[in-house]
Amino acid sequence: MYDVIIIGGGPAGLTAAAYCLRKRLEVLLIAPDLGGKANYRMHLAGLEGFEHITGEEIVRKFRGQLQYLDFARIRGMAAKIEAHADESFETFTVFTEEGNRYHTRALILATGVMPLRLHVPDEEMLLGRGLSYSAVSHAPLFWERETAVVGSGDLALRSAAELALVASRVVLVAPEGLPDHPLKRKLTGQQNVTILEKHHVTHIHGNGYVHAISVRSPEGSEQEIPVSGVFGELGFRPLSDLVQGLVELNAEGYVVIDDRCRTSRPGIFAAGDVTDTYAEQVLIATGEGAKAALAAYDYLLYY
Amino acid sequence: MYDVIIIGGGPAGLTAAAYCLRKRLEVLLIAPDLGGKANYRMHLAGLEGFEHITGEEIVRKFRGQLQYLDFARIRGMAAKIEAHADESFETFTVFTEEGNRYHTRALILATGVMPLRLHVPDEEMLLGRGLSYSAVSHAPLFWERETAVVGSGDLALRSAAELALVASRVVLVAPEGLPDHPLKRKLTGQQNVTILEKHHVTHIHGNGYVHAISVRSPEGSEQEIPVSGVFGELGFRPLSDLVQGLVELNAEGYVVIDDRCRTSRPGIFAAGDVTDTYAEQVLIATGEGAKAALAAYDYLLYY
Repeated sequence: MYDVIIIGGGPAGLTAAAYCLRKRLEVLLIAPDLGGKANYRMHLAGLEGFEHITGEEIVRKFRGQLQYLDFARIRGMAAKIEAHADESFETFTVFTEEGNRYHTRALILATGVMPLRLHVPDEEMLLGRGLSYSAVSHAPLFWERETAVVGSGDLALRSAAELALVASRVVLVAPEGLPDHPLKRKLTGQQNVTILEKHHVTHIHGNGYVHAISVRSPEGSEQEIPVSGVFGELGFRPLSDLVQGLVELNAEGYVVIDDRCRTSRPGIFAAGDVTDTYAEQVLIATGEGAKAALAAYDYLLYY
Repeated sequence: MYDVIIIGGGPAGLTAAAYCLRKRLEVLLIAPDLGGKANYRMHLAGLEGFEHITGEEIVRKFRGQLQYLDFARIRGMAAKIEAHADESFETFTVFTEEGNRYHTRALILATGVMPLRLHVPDEEMLLGRGLSYSAVSHAPLFWERETAVVGSGDLALRSAAELALVASRVVLVAPEGLPDHPLKRKLTGQQNVTILEKHHVTHIHGNGYVHAISVRSPEGSEQEIPVSGVFGELGFRPLSDLVQGLVELNAEGYVVIDDRCRTSRPGIFAAGDVTDTYAEQVLIATGEGAKAALAAYDYLLYY
């Protein structure tokens, strides 16, 4: 019986594991790989020596400590979680896709989100080479560059507004058109912004790095637009299937947590992008992972 | 007119400043010193080479970046904040104790908390040398050591319960007696725990490092108890006087924030220990500082 099982090996999960180990809890981390999106960096042609503020070093440091402490980790995918009534506290069983099962007193879910893909040719290849799913993280790298944002919602509008402050050009391609929104009105008046409603991106062109996109108009005509950055801002899918039916999810499927990363079910905690709080940045996710670990520790004090 | 003024130079304030700079905002940091409690480390006799998980290195890294970016900083104390009605957004003026004033569109309050002192002789001298105000941070360092916890509330009970798992002995000195609480019942049955209700600590003894406390019973008799760790767990005073009357505070004086560090007043954000969310750990405070900066940035996009 473990004290805590952590599912997910990104910044939130790794930080939670490091804190649990520090508190001398019996802990198991189940994840297909370590580092999550902290392993992901934007590479751009002609841009070297730019000093980043990221949480990568923290994660590296934690990873070292996890090894040092002879950390129990399963390289695998959690497939199902069952809750069992006990005397006064529930316990949980995690089944992996590989056919193993592990028992625990508490669980921390840190499975993250998947960005919705544009579903255009060469998307996977150009990811991190001009293509990003996070303007919050990467917009500052596109100073004086030509960029495109793809999306029709709030997220796309905010991303375009942020890029408009740094990029020489922003083409906002909104496949479904844009809602009436103060940022839409603001963007419409800006010289370096072009809005293409009901247009669709059909191709991202790049030979190593993004250099253009192809866009199809509602009438069916195609044009090629030179850009060095493309921001896919269609939204995210939270990876919360594992706890569906066990804890409260919001309408978009994010795990509802309180300010200490507690879910609606005692003994289950969640941290990072999969939760309904704001994470996105590595540094925020590490903080949330620490919170979840301390909350789980606090819960176990009452055992 | 600044875009953002940040008040407080601890982990939350520094991280907020680094993120604002990265977003190319005009930013001013007002703080009497930099680093806050991240500068504070526990030193113990005979304990070297213990690998810590803290946020100190992040803060050091940020500090380097702040210098690199020719960061505008005022070494001073903010004394008063005034809000001014503008066309559609308020603006704010920060007055410093030194008699200067600075104008800004947005404010991030990261002033932290002060732990309530024990008010016993040699308290200041032994702080960080066996005396701590945070069992969450320092309990793991007291493996197999003799310790005392001072306090009568929830915080003291949790700290004692945590120490009881690692320390060879825990003396819980509760000046006001303890409430009926599941952790009290649990602690009462533990072999390495002694509970002294209505007792008072009159002295912490140490010559370089803590080695004993003096305790006075309700009847007035004094005894000396050998300990190498003392945890003052009387609670905290949030340093929120600056925004009293401007934003909503909770009953204990903490700034009420939402999950993006927004206070009840548009344009004023708060992060870290001064807020009603859980911070305490450096790593959590840095995450909260990043959140506040991104929320302030988002707010300014609408200007």
